[in-house]
Amino acid sequence: MPAPLNLRRVFAGKRVLITGGLGFIGSNLARRLLALGARVAVVDNLMPEYGGNRRNLAGVAGRMRVHVADVRDWPRLPELVRGQDYLFNLAGQTSHMDSMTDPQTDLDINCRAQLAILEACRQHNPSIRIVFASTRQIYGRPDYLPVDESHPLRPVDVNGINKIAGESFHLLYSRVHGIAATALRLTNTIGPRMRIKDARQTFVGVWVRRLLEGQPIEVWGGEQWRDFTYVDDAVDAFLLSAARPEAVGAVFNLGGPPPVTLRRLAELLVELNGRGEFVVRACPGERKKIDIGDYYADDRLIRKKLGWRHKTNLRAALAQTLEFYRRELKHYV
Amino acid sequence: MPAPLNLRRVFAGKRVLITGGLGFIGSNLARRLLALGARVAVVDNLMPEYGGNRRNLAGVAGRMRVHVADVRDWPRLPELVRGQDYLFNLAGQTSHMDSMTDPQTDLDINCRAQLAILEACRQHNPSIRIVFASTRQIYGRPDYLPVDESHPLRPVDVNGINKIAGESFHLLYSRVHGIAATALRLTNTIGPRMRIKDARQTFVGVWVRRLLEGQPIEVWGGEQWRDFTYVDDAVDAFLLSAARPEAVGAVFNLGGPPPVTLRRLAELLVELNGRGEFVVRACPGERKKIDIGDYYADDRLIRKKLGWRHKTNLRAALAQTLEFYRRELKHYV
Repeated sequence: MPAPLNLRRVFAGKRVLITGGLGFIGSNLARRLLALGARVAVVDNLMPEYGGNRRNLAGVAGRMRVHVADVRDWPRLPELVRGQDYLFNLAGQTSHMDSMTDPQTDLDINCRAQLAILEACRQHNPSIRIVFASTRQIYGRPDYLPVDESHPLRPVDVNGINKIAGESFHLLYSRVHGIAATALRLTNTIGPRMRIKDARQTFVGVWVRRLLEGQPIEVWGGEQWRDFTYVDDAVDAFLLSAARPEAVGAVFNLGGPPPVTLRRLAELLVELNGRGEFVVRACPGERKKIDIGDYYADDRLIRKKLGWRHKTNLRAALAQTLEFYRRELKHYV
Repeated sequence: MPAPLNLRRVFAGKRVLITGGLGFIGSNLARRLLALGARVAVVDNLMPEYGGNRRNLAGVAGRMRVHVADVRDWPRLPELVRGQDYLFNLAGQTSHMDSMTDPQTDLDINCRAQLAILEACRQHNPSIRIVFASTRQIYGRPDYLPVDESHPLRPVDVNGINKIAGESFHLLYSRVHGIAATALRLTNTIGPRMRIKDARQTFVGVWVRRLLEGQPIEVWGGEQWRDFTYVDDAVDAFLLSAARPEAVGAVFNLGGPPPVTLRRLAELLVELNGRGEFVVRACPGERKKIDIGDYYADDRLIRKKLGWRHKTNLRAALAQTLEFYRRELKHYV
């Protein structure tokens, strides 16, 4: 385990760019970096189907630069990356179903724009330090559990294919062009500021919405095992990855508290909410075709190499999420 | 080993589209299909840096449809795929070095256009049978030799990343959308009609050119092991993959005669030419960064499942190649 880091010392006064910075994880990261004294700029396209929401930076937007721009807009990229010390690259299309119905948009964001961002860095800021938000979706249906980083990559949907390419470009540019990058393979991240309007970012979002609106949660299947990372713990992982030299060129799974079945998650949410119900339905056909079955991460590598650990258990994560949306519901639906 | 196939019975009268059909393997495939009685259409962008060359269809172009079109030109794709029984999808950017200096073009051809081709098939001809030209480049530096199909994919250049995505889209569309596809992971294919102007398609091309022009062959390194498939044998593999139901959804390595070192290959070429010489140089830095070291394929799977085998040994392959270019040199330089 490496020696503890003083993150304030690392990030205070540093220039940081966050793509997808009005989104769920991006905005939580922006808030934390601001608190650590960094000079933060965020980029977000604020497209209605994605995670960006101005409410996510309520109270702090005035203390950072907010660019409403799309990472697919290549000519904008040089000005955005120039002069930055860190790039947290979180802009992405996250819906698996949308990647099947509109595969080219998924490709343009998750694959093509990623290469354009890296080319902009190579040409205009090769000493930038990058952390890329990858996903467990690239593993596909696991051969074994928990899934470690050397598990084969066999994506089951267009999103998984494009995210592999996006991640691979980062690692290649790190290795060949010396643009220091780290990839974090995220599992289900949950917490305040996630999209709850629908299941495009995470199914937990729409579950929380339905619960708070007095509708039954729809559980598809129910016996699938999943793991969940609380957003503050995910933010820790991004910061550690950027700060630790050991992380350059590396890929890490992110996990967290012990996994649960979807049914158990629904029970917990209903219990914590004090009211509500869930119904279990068969997985719809279109969804079943791209289902990954059970998944949970082996995240020992990031624990060992970077000293990361989760601080929030699942019960606390869900309770804090519910509390946030009870207060903020109207800004997110 | 499956029972022998009568390829004439399979392909006679069938409508076949070949992307990259004025290129090296594509044109040899077009010629063979014509001889088998198929109704052949080829698409090629004839860009000067790529493999397309009108000379490749000399004497037969009048008996097929030749579309000068680019697979990146999406609106053209529906009319091209509609009504076809088979699609041999060989259009690609093949230069590893070019993929590093102009990564977006490699992405647009090897990744983005592939998805557009598959979408065109899904919308306009979902019962088409596809064989996709993939590459051993996606394995990167081998962990072990010979490399079988379950070897991890760890590409060392932009080309390898995009070819993984292109191959993955084919397999995904086969699995999820029922568009029957097979991917062939080619190694160094050699023979008549390969590009010899430079090393953009295969280094063997520029070696042959230099030898025939009385210049010394430049061997970079020399001790790397490589395997080679003669183009007629590669064409066999494409035809068998399209014809055999066992091939749907599958990936096969292609190999051939036993591997040799690059130095041995140069010696053989000089010997067969009866004159000439080679010089051994250190691998240039830019090239070394993306070098894969030794590679040769384990191709037992395609031998077993499809009954494929190579019919041409390396000496014969090189002799026939030299003979072709002695006659045809002026059309290829």
